Amino acid sequence: MPVIAVMYPSTEGMRFDETYYMQSHIPLVLQRWQPLGLTDLQVLRGIPGPDGATPTYTLMAFLTFGSMDQFKDAAAQHGTEIFADIPNFTDTTPVLQFNDKVG
Amino acid sequence: MPVIAVMYPSTEGMRFDETYYMQSHIPLVLQRWQPLGLTDLQVLRGIPGPDGATPTYTLMAFLTFGSMDQFKDAAAQHGTEIFADIPNFTDTTPVLQFNDKVG
Repeated sequence: MPVIAVMYPSTEGMRFDETYYMQSHIPLVLQRWQPLGLTDLQVLRGIPGPDGATPTYTLMAFLTFGSMDQFKDAAAQHGTEIFADIPNFTDTTPVLQFNDKVG
Repeated sequence: MPVIAVMYPSTEGMRFDETYYMQSHIPLVLQRWQPLGLTDLQVLRGIPGPDGATPTYTLMAFLTFGSMDQFKDAAAQHGTEIFADIPNFTDTTPVLQFNDKVG
């Protein structure tokens, strides 16, 4: 089952509205994509390391789909709407990465 | 509960021995750190996107500890040994990031 990682780089002076993200963006993603094969969604918030280091990513989301074909179909149907919502909570561009869960 | 992300960047000509990683490195991490508060370990392997794009990270591991103090203690006791094992499976340096699970 493919896991799509959506990783928002942490940059100086960036804007990231976590309240909007959690209360509006994530519900939109779930509403559109759960009926199309999204089976799990996890969110990690980057925090400073023990040495105070800034995290590379402000936030990372991991979306598990039943199959890559399901993801492609979900993206084709609602990707435009979901991606158009990103500027409502951040001015950074997320890094997307596709993965297989191996452990 | 803190989640430590260990992300191995994908670079041209890099070496990554996934067999060693899964059969020797991960068991070493579990053996040393489970008794010290490691409660979960997940591994994602980067795969090409639908457009054939190379993943940013060859592999990402996510280690959940009961608390940051437990992680600090675990790192103090066995970090040197575990980090010294990395050159046995790759010539890349992983990016470390600390996180809170928020969804």
